[in-house]
This record gives sequence, C-alpha cells and structure tokens, in this order.
Amino acid sequence: MTTRVNYQKELAMLGQSLEEMGELVENNIEKSLAAFEKRNVELAQEIVKGDRAVDDMQRSIEARCLSLMLHQQPVVARDLRLVSSALKIVTDLERIGDHAQDIAELVLRITDADIIGNVGHIIEMASKAKKMMKDAIHAYTARDMALADQVTRDDDAVDDLFNEVKLEISNLLRDGKEPVDDCVDVLMIAKYLERIGDHAVNICEWTEFNETGVVKNIRLL
Amino acid sequence: MTTRVNYQKELAMLGQSLEEMGELVENNIEKSLAAFEKRNVELAQEIVKGDRAVDDMQRSIEARCLSLMLHQQPVVARDLRLVSSALKIVTDLERIGDHAQDIAELVLRITDADIIGNVGHIIEMASKAKKMMKDAIHAYTARDMALADQVTRDDDAVDDLFNEVKLEISNLLRDGKEPVDDCVDVLMIAKYLERIGDHAVNICEWTEFNETGVVKNIRLL
Repeated sequence: MTTRVNYQKELAMLGQSLEEMGELVENNIEKSLAAFEKRNVELAQEIVKGDRAVDDMQRSIEARCLSLMLHQQPVVARDLRLVSSALKIVTDLERIGDHAQDIAELVLRITDADIIGNVGHIIEMASKAKKMMKDAIHAYTARDMALADQVTRDDDAVDDLFNEVKLEISNLLRDGKEPVDDCVDVLMIAKYLERIGDHAVNICEWTEFNETGVVKNIRLL
Repeated sequence: MTTRVNYQKELAMLGQSLEEMGELVENNIEKSLAAFEKRNVELAQEIVKGDRAVDDMQRSIEARCLSLMLHQQPVVARDLRLVSSALKIVTDLERIGDHAQDIAELVLRITDADIIGNVGHIIEMASKAKKMMKDAIHAYTARDMALADQVTRDDDAVDDLFNEVKLEISNLLRDGKEPVDDCVDVLMIAKYLERIGDHAVNICEWTEFNETGVVKNIRLL
C-alpha cells in the first residue's frame, strides 16, 4: 500500500508523463505537416520510419494508471478522475501520433507538389487542426476549461474546411487537372486532419471530466 | 462500501451492459451496410436520424466503471482488468456506432446506385469488417482468446481490400465512368470500414488484457 505522500508524487509523475507524450505527438504532427507543406521528403521519411516511442509511452502510462488504481486504496474521487482521464486520453494521443505517420506516408506518394496550391483550404485546415491539438493538450495539463471549450467550438471550423477541401478535390478530379492518385491522397490527408480535430475534442471532454466529473452535461463520477 | 457479493453482481451487470451496447452497435452497422448494399434510402435515413442510445449507453457504462472503481476497495487485479477494459472498449464501440451513421449519411448522397457494382471489392470489404466487429465483441464477452487472435489477423485482409478499393476508385475517376462525388463518397465509406476493422482489433487487445493483464507482449497489470 502506497503512502498518501508517495501517491501524490506518483500522480504528479503521471501528469508529467502525459505532458511528455503530448509534446512528442505534437512534435510528430508538426514535422509531418511541415513535410506536407514543404514537400520535404527527408522529414516525411523520418516520421514514417518513426520509432515505437509513442506506443511505448502509451503502454507505460496505461500501466502506471492501472497500478495507481490497484495499489492506492481507498482512492478519492478527484484522484480517480485524474487517473481515469489519463487512461482515456492516451488513446487519443496515440491515434494522433498514428495520423502523423499516416500523413507522412501519403506525403511520400504525392507526385505533383503543386497540388497543395490547388487545394486552397488544406493548409488552413492543417494549421487549425494542429492548433486544436496543441490547445487541447495544453487545456488538459493546465486544467484550463475556457481553452477546452474553445477547442470544442473550433471543431466546427475544421469540419467546414474538410467539406471545402472535398469540394476542391472533386473539382480538380472533374477537370482532370491533377493526377487522380494525388487527389485521393490529399483527400485522405484531409480526413486525417479532421480526425485529429475529433481527438482534440475528446481530450477536452476528458479535461472537463477531470475537473468536474461531468462530460457533456452527464455526471460520470 | 459495497459488499463482495454485490460487487460480483455489479461486475456481471457491467458485462451485460457492454454486451447490450455491442449488440446495438452491431445492429446499427448491419443496417447501415444493408442500406449501402441495397441502396435502401429509408433504412439509411433511419440510421442517420438515429437516436442517442449508443452515446447514452457509453456514458452509463463509463459511470458504472468509475463507480465500481471508487466504491469497491480494495479491488483485486482481475476485477480491475474487467472494469478498465470495459472503460476502454466503450470508446471503440461508440466510434463504430458513429461510423454506422457516417456510412448511412454517405449512402443518402450517392446518386448512381451502380457504382457499388463498379467497385468490385467494397462488398467483400464491408462483409469482412462487419465480421471482424462481430467476432471482436463475441471474443470479449465469451473471453475467447483464439477468436480475438483471429480477428487481429483478419485486419490485414481488410487493409488489403482497402487498397484494392482505392485502386478501383482511382481507375473509375481516371476513366470518368462514375460521378466524381460518388467516387469520393464510396472512398470515404471504405475508409470507415477500414477504421471499423481497427476498432475491432482494439477490442481484441483489451480482450487479451482482460484475460492476461498483457497487451501485445507488454504487461500492463
């Protein structure tokens, strides 16, 4: 049985690990989108080759959460909220990390660098999705509920941009102006950006839960 | 503090709730894919209109998990595995439910019913993804590790089929044989099917964890 003081230390370490995983994922997305925008093949290759760092961090945080649940008893509601929200958020972080790799793989396949210029809204979409993800991680670690609300609202803009991008790509395909495969790949990149926005919203929901025990007006704890 | 007997009852009820949520999600995917294959607009509309049943079940199961963690102490590792895997799996089930709605929305937009016949691998992909999901839910509830392993292996076939479908759609777009928007929509449906396969694999990972405390050779508990 862990002492209360040790337990508080371990909770603080859990928070720190989540922050580190957030930074790593953020960094991977930054690189992946930079590779896309600048058609930087070396950078894309670096991401694709990747390493198991994100997966390892996910498993290590999950193990830490479960160990805290098992060994510190009785647990109080506030601590349980912290541990269970961490257990949920690592899944979203890991998925965002996967999307960094997915995007980098597609960057390596695109043959016509000019396509980015012809899909007017994709850079804005990338920049907004990236900001949502960074803000979501910051909202969680800083327990900033106003920022979490902001991220949730920002998702509509990313969804709207996804529809714009789909329209632009449909037009390119109709006009035969770009290679079909490139169009399909850019569409998939847009889909991953839209999903990154969704994961950011999930992180914000668990941020709200961590603070209040409530998710979207439903009390969970 | 709950008594041990009550706790065992509550664990059994948790398992039952997960099973019910699994059945509901399975049913929604069945309907959604039937609507796609048969171009059944009424069925698609029914799914799109949907109801909040899946979301409500998710929140209710999460609340039940957290309450079990908070009120039954000390908890033993085996019970904690059950509760924490349930907490993880509801997220995958809810996402699969979302994809049922995503697919139904796209079914309503497709203008040329014949496109399904021209994308030769999409029906096979839908059938395999659906089977993976059903098997995954069954593997979890029946604690059938051999079936869970099988589902994980099946994912390669679904990923391969996704690549086939992408190729078929690229060819349709290149030949101008189908409306561009329909091609884009069918591609998105294929992407959702691929994601359903991924969620089935996640469910199997948590099935393994529930039985053994291990996920992909890493001991979490």
